[in-house]
Amino acid sequence: MITVEIGKRIKYLRNNMNLSQEKLSLKANIDRTYLAGVESGKRNVSVINLEKIITALDSNFRDFFSYTVDYK
Amino acid sequence: MITVEIGKRIKYLRNNMNLSQEKLSLKANIDRTYLAGVESGKRNVSVINLEKIITALDSNFRDFFSYTVDYK
Repeated sequence: MITVEIGKRIKYLRNNMNLSQEKLSLKANIDRTYLAGVESGKRNVSVINLEKIITALDSNFRDFFSYTVDYK
Repeated sequence: MITVEIGKRIKYLRNNMNLSQEKLSLKANIDRTYLAGVESGKRNVSVINLEKIITALDSNFRDFFSYTVDYK
């Protein structure tokens, strides 16, 4: 499911940056519990909120979705 | 804005397939007026609906977001 894939990708990049969910949510200006829901694949995130998260991860849509299976 | 970029990309791929908005919306199982709103960048589409559209365009998230400026 795409929400699960996106959530795993966010978590993978967040861990690479040694950021807690709280720090990333502050950087992205979104609620921490919302971010937790997105990471777990339970939230059907909109592209505007996804852009906030991806930008806070110092990434962009192209790089974000260019992953293979290495994060699974 | 990401919604505008996504809308342009959908329209570009849809035109490449010679599909009308109506035919693509039927294939994606979404409302035609909703698709029109996404294409125009007015709708903040969720990733689950975006996946429906991308799949109906015979594409995937990686390829969808790997474009450069050729569609602008």
